[in-house]
Amino acid sequence: MIKETVQKIKLVENEFAEKAQKRLDSLTKPQGSLGRLEEFARRIVAITENIMPLLDKKVIFTFAGDHGVAEEGVSAYPKEVTRQMVFNFLHGGAGINVLARHAGAEVVVVDIGVNGYFGNVEGLVSKKVVSGTGNIRKGPALTRDEALRCIEFGIELANEYTKKGYKIFATGDMGIANTTPSSAIAAVLTGRPVSEVTGRGTGIGDNALKNKVKVIEDSIALNKPDSKDPIDVLSKIGGAEIGGITGLIIGAATNRIPVVIDGFISTAGALIAYCIEPKTKDYMFAAHNSVEIGHKAMLEKIGLRPILDLDLRLGEGTGAALAMLMIEAGLKIYKEMATFGEAGVSKNEW
Amino acid sequence: MIKETVQKIKLVENEFAEKAQKRLDSLTKPQGSLGRLEEFARRIVAITENIMPLLDKKVIFTFAGDHGVAEEGVSAYPKEVTRQMVFNFLHGGAGINVLARHAGAEVVVVDIGVNGYFGNVEGLVSKKVVSGTGNIRKGPALTRDEALRCIEFGIELANEYTKKGYKIFATGDMGIANTTPSSAIAAVLTGRPVSEVTGRGTGIGDNALKNKVKVIEDSIALNKPDSKDPIDVLSKIGGAEIGGITGLIIGAATNRIPVVIDGFISTAGALIAYCIEPKTKDYMFAAHNSVEIGHKAMLEKIGLRPILDLDLRLGEGTGAALAMLMIEAGLKIYKEMATFGEAGVSKNEW
Repeated sequence: MIKETVQKIKLVENEFAEKAQKRLDSLTKPQGSLGRLEEFARRIVAITENIMPLLDKKVIFTFAGDHGVAEEGVSAYPKEVTRQMVFNFLHGGAGINVLARHAGAEVVVVDIGVNGYFGNVEGLVSKKVVSGTGNIRKGPALTRDEALRCIEFGIELANEYTKKGYKIFATGDMGIANTTPSSAIAAVLTGRPVSEVTGRGTGIGDNALKNKVKVIEDSIALNKPDSKDPIDVLSKIGGAEIGGITGLIIGAATNRIPVVIDGFISTAGALIAYCIEPKTKDYMFAAHNSVEIGHKAMLEKIGLRPILDLDLRLGEGTGAALAMLMIEAGLKIYKEMATFGEAGVSKNEW
Repeated sequence: MIKETVQKIKLVENEFAEKAQKRLDSLTKPQGSLGRLEEFARRIVAITENIMPLLDKKVIFTFAGDHGVAEEGVSAYPKEVTRQMVFNFLHGGAGINVLARHAGAEVVVVDIGVNGYFGNVEGLVSKKVVSGTGNIRKGPALTRDEALRCIEFGIELANEYTKKGYKIFATGDMGIANTTPSSAIAAVLTGRPVSEVTGRGTGIGDNALKNKVKVIEDSIALNKPDSKDPIDVLSKIGGAEIGGITGLIIGAATNRIPVVIDGFISTAGALIAYCIEPKTKDYMFAAHNSVEIGHKAMLEKIGLRPILDLDLRLGEGTGAALAMLMIEAGLKIYKEMATFGEAGVSKNEW
């Protein structure tokens, strides 16, 4: 199913981008003076192949999953927080809820790998693959089948929300300890040393950071993920929510839906999607430059330039919600500004 | 009148910022994980001395003025564009109109120095001091009295819109050739060579840029502005809209209203306000890092870190409109997120 989906992804063609730029250049402003806003408009037109696209229905998918490696003391928070935060999301009290409301986007909370079962909870989307991953210091996070199922569930969500008429997606994550598998993925897929791509996550101290680096090095040494096989990397040292994000991105690309990648964990998912099929990059927007030191290395590997740089390190999709506001600003400029002709403004003389 | 107003400006106290940080630290997120959003919330609380401030009424002042130095070939556009763009602003077709709508802010268009007279035009605020400045290559831009009047008009607007219940201001500019006086101000008040603070403005080529640098060097040599006297600098090598912006910022600080500084021209106005009274800095938010190379030097001199970096170089207040969305996001986080106690989420263990 994944292979079939991936084969449908097409490169984003320049033809529509050129048409968009032509209109941008006719608007009452010096050419190029709205900088990246113009880039956003151009890309949205090219991705959707629609000269007057709408971004009226926006959705942020917050994938939640637990991590066996939490027992190695790699996070400042106890692992029950993942489950508690799922309820906080559903009650509208978390950072992502506030910022999604600000951006006019909906939040879809997905249980793809939280420890324990929720039963029937209103508003929670159950795409459960595991009840927490295995501790990667002792063995693989997921079986290959489980990893594939996470990706498939992400693709299913992308298909479903495309059919429901949503026009732009964003990714988000919740999972205590999930900067640990994300740093592991960053190290394996960018080829950088673990210490260069491992940060303080929720805010651990110096000793805990040293321990975290060691845990990741041990996990890679033990599991021997094959850097040429992104699904092997996801299953051996990844996580369920990371796989869901990978799938959502692949599904977005298949459906020609722009997808905003949040921070460090989302970018680990995006990097796996990119390694599965580099064309997915054409559909991605990098929301922001996270405080996590490994983030930049992954963005560079994919070739994405972040939109914002606000020292964020929360995840959940918070940076993506803010970036959506900037992307929408670009599209509004493109659609709503007067042209030189309409406004009776003289063009430049040279 | 200016002296009296300036004397009323108080430093922003830390007490309210500390109260705000205490609340921020009780919210369901790792401490500090919302980075600069938290800083924005803290500063808005401290500036307004209100533990639950509202930013419901937002206004962007776009000051328009012409520049005699336009005849020296320093801009890519003919000078009648200033006047044409004023009509574009009033009809809602310019970049600032689109982005202000996006940010839920009003635009107030102020004729403070446009060439020629408008008569009674609906929606245009007339605070006219001059019909274009003098060509700074041949003499001063404004008399000292005119410069003072520009600042006073800005203060009057700040007072008026405070009384009307507006809670946050932003600055914007329109004026063909106005990067030239702004670069001149940057050079004189930061002490850097003209060539290091002079850029391409609306998009001039290499030869025109060389000429622009020469024009600015000549203007400074001829007018000999006193770098210790910011009003002398404004009058000799500045501009009417720059003076209006300076006044608006001073007035905002007196009224304890946060003020978002747009790009290069607005920052020239802000730098003059800062040199008149450094306490004004406490009320300023730097919207973005402009493409104009002299912008960073001025921001550093004031000590402001820009919020956005989107390669903008349009002015009008466009960057400020976008930055308002980020500042508001910070305040919403502060006001709307659930605390650990409210949400039943465990705090970190260490």
